[in-house]
Amino acid sequence: RAEELISELHFADIADLLGWASSSQRVKLVDLIRPDFDPELLTELDDELREEVISLLGTEAVAEAISELDSDDVVEVVEYLEEEDQKELLGALSDIERARVEEALSYPEYTAGRIMQRELVAIPDYWSVGQTIDFLRSAKNLPDDFYDIIVVDPRYSPVGIVPLSRAIRTNRPVLIRDVMDSENMRTVVVTEEQENVAHLFRQRDLISAPVVDDSGRLVGVITVDDVVDVIDEEYEEDMMRLAGVGEEDDLSSAIFDTTRSRFTWLLVNLFTAIAASMVIGVFEATIQQLVALAVLMPIVASMGGNAGTQTLTVAVRAIATRELTSTNAWRVIRKEVAVCGLNGLAFAVLTGAVTWFWFDDVMLGGVIGAAMIINLLFAGLFGALIPLGLERAGIDPAVSSSVFLTTITDVVGFFAFLGLAATFLL
Amino acid sequence: RAEELISELHFADIADLLGWASSSQRVKLVDLIRPDFDPELLTELDDELREEVISLLGTEAVAEAISELDSDDVVEVVEYLEEEDQKELLGALSDIERARVEEALSYPEYTAGRIMQRELVAIPDYWSVGQTIDFLRSAKNLPDDFYDIIVVDPRYSPVGIVPLSRAIRTNRPVLIRDVMDSENMRTVVVTEEQENVAHLFRQRDLISAPVVDDSGRLVGVITVDDVVDVIDEEYEEDMMRLAGVGEEDDLSSAIFDTTRSRFTWLLVNLFTAIAASMVIGVFEATIQQLVALAVLMPIVASMGGNAGTQTLTVAVRAIATRELTSTNAWRVIRKEVAVCGLNGLAFAVLTGAVTWFWFDDVMLGGVIGAAMIINLLFAGLFGALIPLGLERAGIDPAVSSSVFLTTITDVVGFFAFLGLAATFLL
Ligand SMILES: [Mg+2]
Ligand SMILES: [Mg+2]
Ligand SMILES: [Mg+2]
Ligand SMILES: [Mg+2]
Ligand SMILES: [Mg+2]
Ligand SMILES: [Mg+2]
Ligand SMILES: [Mg+2]
Ligand SMILES: [Mg+2]
Ligand SMILES: [Mg+2]
Ligand SMILES: [Mg+2]
Ligand SMILES: [Mg+2]
Ligand SMILES: [Mg+2]
Ligand SMILES: [Mg+2]
Repeated sequence: RAEELISELHFADIADLLGWASSSQRVKLVDLIRPDFDPELLTELDDELREEVISLLGTEAVAEAISELDSDDVVEVVEYLEEEDQKELLGALSDIERARVEEALSYPEYTAGRIMQRELVAIPDYWSVGQTIDFLRSAKNLPDDFYDIIVVDPRYSPVGIVPLSRAIRTNRPVLIRDVMDSENMRTVVVTEEQENVAHLFRQRDLISAPVVDDSGRLVGVITVDDVVDVIDEEYEEDMMRLAGVGEEDDLSSAIFDTTRSRFTWLLVNLFTAIAASMVIGVFEATIQQLVALAVLMPIVASMGGNAGTQTLTVAVRAIATRELTSTNAWRVIRKEVAVCGLNGLAFAVLTGAVTWFWFDDVMLGGVIGAAMIINLLFAGLFGALIPLGLERAGIDPAVSSSVFLTTITDVVGFFAFLGLAATFLL
Repeated sequence: RAEELISELHFADIADLLGWASSSQRVKLVDLIRPDFDPELLTELDDELREEVISLLGTEAVAEAISELDSDDVVEVVEYLEEEDQKELLGALSDIERARVEEALSYPEYTAGRIMQRELVAIPDYWSVGQTIDFLRSAKNLPDDFYDIIVVDPRYSPVGIVPLSRAIRTNRPVLIRDVMDSENMRTVVVTEEQENVAHLFRQRDLISAPVVDDSGRLVGVITVDDVVDVIDEEYEEDMMRLAGVGEEDDLSSAIFDTTRSRFTWLLVNLFTAIAASMVIGVFEATIQQLVALAVLMPIVASMGGNAGTQTLTVAVRAIATRELTSTNAWRVIRKEVAVCGLNGLAFAVLTGAVTWFWFDDVMLGGVIGAAMIINLLFAGLFGALIPLGLERAGIDPAVSSSVFLTTITDVVGFFAFLGLAATFLL
């Protein structure tokens, strides 16, 4: 009965079930799917989970099944397996298929070559629509799904595409060359980064795009469903990097691996926290004389960190979507400093008033207000400058931005508050 | 010359240029695009920028142009305009088109009804493939692009779809009913949230999906290019909410609007920072006796905040992708507490040792180590519990999670460290 229920599920839903299951439930689930195993399921799993499921199913069973898959899906299944397993799986493919997958694996990770499929429909531009339809009706090795017919010249370079909706609406005698779209065709070079491919699809509302090698020869096609996965991946990467979580940190990772992957970021944070503490250490004598400073100083640091994080997040996201480029960088920096400065002013008044009443000390209120303005100005400035600087240096602006930023807002916050206090209150 | 250059650009690239430009450059740019204005450009702009460009172009010119657009694009252009402008733009549409757009606007924001287009291809299942192709060749009001033919029953309910790649490959005499895919068709209800629509497209690798009303009647179709925009929007929302940035906070917003939208979050943060300060205030006498405590206490709070943010980010993301559900919630919570506990142990030793050498006080090292373990355990527990709890309460787990969390890690961090110090050191 459970077997029947499972066999009615879509492979992507079974993939979800496998993700939610405990390891022992997973063993039972794999036994249930074994008789009716759809290899596309493997493309929906996280890397570690996929390895586990493949070893539960047995490499022979998987090897046999994956020959049904499109080449991009085979690449996804085998790319992060250990070499031995990879060899065993690829060994089950036909020579042509294996050569295709091996070529794809020869392209760098996260490039167009890894996400394209080799199965495509390409025709010459002197065919008529009728000839094309007849060819499609009789051809054996067509991809399961395709959305555009790629028109190639004699050197197998794409010269245009015919969206299927246009092909099916055109009368048979019309020549492909008269119906193809050359102007809006965008080809992707096989070594292009997947992030740029995603941007192109988003920008042009593409459903599929031909992929060419360095010499302009058609080598594959990228479809939008795989680009959706890329968008998810790139987004997750930014979010995780901003929080200092390793990329390999899936829910299904082992406790020890997760602990190790997070340790590094926390270690960096420990160093920066110690740096901030050393700033406080400089003012030990001041705090000794006025303990209220110890009570209040985290407020200044915390507000700076939060205001800076707001700016930082907006900047990182805008760089990723190409809304923030060198063209408008200075305008954005000026705006962020102005926004943080204005909020600094507002919170200087608020925090100053609270402090005045709390400690019945108007000067202390003035000092915390001044420190607040200074720290929020730095927060706005560096919240924008750090990601822009990293981007210009060729480093991903998401990675390590936030630790730089909070170091600055902690150090500036403590230094401004305690320094002003030492100068004006004692 | 500039006009020529501009007229060769794709509308999405012109939209980028408008986003990067200063307001004065924008006026000049709009003058350049005026003669050859493509209304689809408007769908690529942020809400505020769109309003500005529409008023620069003049509502009459825009009204005339938008009648070329698909209904979903018209909705996108007009949905956030002021009522008067909206009326003026809609007035230029034909009665049928206007009715379609007004119906779409009657559905709640961020639902399927707002992103679907009314232009679609629907046929009965008793037609043959040949009849269908002849119909497509002669029909006048077809959408510019479509990817699936929707098969409807006499009550205009979708009963299956025929992907174009399948239609074009099938011989003319074959009946639509024998070639349509009913099993894999997924219809979307018009009031479904766009977030769920995006999840469905991602999960099933869909290119388009029929939209039905409450009674199951076909009312529109959603295409993947618009779902890509939804995915981007939903991501941006999560990322911005986690950082406490308002949703309307675009690069092109006015300084004052941005300041105000960020003020709220900073105000919430001020209250929580004051709460943490009050915890410190309780231990004023303790700090007076041992100022080293003031120097060290931010380290404990900061490490807790960072470890908690790691857990929180993983949890928020996993809830959004449905990898974390009530099925595996306890397992994930246990894992996160274990991970944070292990890192707590590691950093207890590290920080304890640093403190011991820095202040030459082994007991102080022990106290900070113990406080570190306690705070990181709370960080892991609440980093997972808070988003899960918000989700269960029907609140977006991204919004306000991080302020709850850092309040907890600050309060627990200060309380554990200063409390242990007061108990064991004095
Ligand atoms: Mg754009
Ligand atoms: Mg788009
Ligand atoms: Mg569009
Ligand atoms: Mg694919
Ligand atoms: Mg894929
Ligand atoms: Mg990136
Ligand atoms: Mg990347
Ligand atoms: Mg999935
Ligand atoms: Mg997918
Ligand atoms: Mg797939
Ligand atoms: Mg559309
Ligand atoms: Mg959401
Ligand atoms: Mg939403």
